[in-house]
Amino acid sequence: MKLHLEDLEDLGRGAAFLGTGGGGDPYIGRMLATHAIREFGMPELIDVDSLDDDAFVCTVAMLGAPTVLAEKAACGEDADRVISLMERYHRRKIDAIVPVEIGGLNSMIPIMAGARLGLPVVDADGMGRAFPEIQMVSFNIHGVSCTPVVMLDEHLNSVVIETGTAKRAEELARVASIEMGCSVLVSLYSMSGLQLKQSAVRGTLTSALEIGRSIAAGRRTSDPVGSLVRFLNSSPHYGKCAEVFAGKVVDLRRETTKGFSMGHCTLEALDRSRRSMEVLFQNEHLVARENGRVKVIVPDLICMVDSESLEPAPVETLKYGQRLRVLGLRAPDILRTPAALAVLGPQAFGLSEPYQALS
Amino acid sequence: MKLHLEDLEDLGRGAAFLGTGGGGDPYIGRMLATHAIREFGMPELIDVDSLDDDAFVCTVAMLGAPTVLAEKAACGEDADRVISLMERYHRRKIDAIVPVEIGGLNSMIPIMAGARLGLPVVDADGMGRAFPEIQMVSFNIHGVSCTPVVMLDEHLNSVVIETGTAKRAEELARVASIEMGCSVLVSLYSMSGLQLKQSAVRGTLTSALEIGRSIAAGRRTSDPVGSLVRFLNSSPHYGKCAEVFAGKVVDLRRETTKGFSMGHCTLEALDRSRRSMEVLFQNEHLVARENGRVKVIVPDLICMVDSESLEPAPVETLKYGQRLRVLGLRAPDILRTPAALAVLGPQAFGLSEPYQALS
Repeated sequence: MKLHLEDLEDLGRGAAFLGTGGGGDPYIGRMLATHAIREFGMPELIDVDSLDDDAFVCTVAMLGAPTVLAEKAACGEDADRVISLMERYHRRKIDAIVPVEIGGLNSMIPIMAGARLGLPVVDADGMGRAFPEIQMVSFNIHGVSCTPVVMLDEHLNSVVIETGTAKRAEELARVASIEMGCSVLVSLYSMSGLQLKQSAVRGTLTSALEIGRSIAAGRRTSDPVGSLVRFLNSSPHYGKCAEVFAGKVVDLRRETTKGFSMGHCTLEALDRSRRSMEVLFQNEHLVARENGRVKVIVPDLICMVDSESLEPAPVETLKYGQRLRVLGLRAPDILRTPAALAVLGPQAFGLSEPYQALS
Repeated sequence: MKLHLEDLEDLGRGAAFLGTGGGGDPYIGRMLATHAIREFGMPELIDVDSLDDDAFVCTVAMLGAPTVLAEKAACGEDADRVISLMERYHRRKIDAIVPVEIGGLNSMIPIMAGARLGLPVVDADGMGRAFPEIQMVSFNIHGVSCTPVVMLDEHLNSVVIETGTAKRAEELARVASIEMGCSVLVSLYSMSGLQLKQSAVRGTLTSALEIGRSIAAGRRTSDPVGSLVRFLNSSPHYGKCAEVFAGKVVDLRRETTKGFSMGHCTLEALDRSRRSMEVLFQNEHLVARENGRVKVIVPDLICMVDSESLEPAPVETLKYGQRLRVLGLRAPDILRTPAALAVLGPQAFGLSEPYQALS
């Protein structure tokens, strides 16, 4: 697939949808990617299978609280530097960049880095959505080491972390990211082409682009939500999709704490049914309960969109009185195995309810 | 000078004295060094001037709150690993190890590392005492980069920090050290032999050993404190020494916070003079005030010793009712220049009083 500059708006919209409330504002990422593409040209987009087994790939992403990522973005030079530190560590050139997270602005950061460095970007990622912690990645579930984690702040100060487990790397990276201002550029999950083939969530850059297009096209129909739901139900990369709630925000608690945007949001139905939905989030939405009963729970995606425009509504822009539609989307199968659920299922977030696939 | 296993007790006592209340318990360091020396042999002790200008040296130390260092020590393997990470970073073999801090247990850690790795240990350090933060080092004052800072926890998880300033490295290393359990092994201030010659506080391993011996010898005299004060006044490496107070602990506040042992201790005179001395500390003693007036202030050393045995009394063992003598010792000249005071003088600790040399 060939990407064009004018695709970035649809890609960003789809990535925000897959961000399930988090992942950072793709608008920021789009500005960064656009700027880099204008200066250096569009990077090549390649399939996982086109990589040699012994190719050497790594991820590039922004790490931090989305509330802060919106204010303190990457500068470009940090992308060059983070990749060169990764190459220095391994004493080997990087052959391609793969997104670690398709949801939110981290769909765009690899495009920015690929453009600047003349490296292809792989049409895949490690989440198929967004997740708040760096061990919550399909690469980790398949045994790819997350370290070295190379972190860079806007002054190009760097921290390189090597640990036995991805969870320990997450803990160290999180405190470092907080000290570095809650927004840093990272490169992690460096691996071979073979490892990527075994562990990637495939085709997700394409999915994000198509979701973004479907939302835009749906606006010109009489049933925008139905149109999007039908499109998602036909997607080869995700499972079942359904609208689970429509309502307005009547309660919202959101704070930036421990390096995350944490809180919950309550919606009340617009009809007189007195139904209400509470959604908990840690950067991303974790669980949506209707009158106390689970409707959607991680790793399935809880996607809030504006009632009229269907524009995805990230956690940091939620406000009292906002009218929203809530869609549930079953996560890719690779995230729903017992091994995957142990790392990124409800218990990994301290939720008491077991995973139940969106029905 | 040749060091012998039986010197370590005197060396540890002198190092505790120079620790000015902090620096971590040298007993821990002595056990680690003794163990390594028994297995690998005594490392060579060398003068700064015996190094080639283009020799390559670095420091090895433990970093953390002394209260925790006492419980969670280095394991030896971490010393091998921290040096090998430093060598991998620079792609160059280390020729010698120099203590970054002579006060407390960090006098011993380089001996342990030198023994294990067959490397000589330089008779010098970067403080002439102990200081709580990693920018408070003569090497930094003379323009030697403190980074890369290589940090290792007891599970051999590592963090490598590169920054533009030593103060920024301190901030990042501190949060990482807290997350790593408030006690880590670090290697930092890697430099050439020439840089070390220009920036070291010289002869401080010898000084620590001689102070320890003087305390032990003084116990057999009728005037142990006078004997120690006379010895220190004759030292070529330190300035004036004087006993500034004798009393018992009547108030003590000590907490492990932000990665440090913070607090203050009040002594009351044993005579009926109603004189009292308050001593503030951040790992190390910062200022000693008698009835509100400064008697000794950083970088001059405030050294508390047991009234009878003259055994140094570290902050973490202070207790109500303990009888102590307080000695002031003027810091080496290299720490008292305007450039040095900006980094490790009273204002660097947020104290309002200006530096005044012990008189």
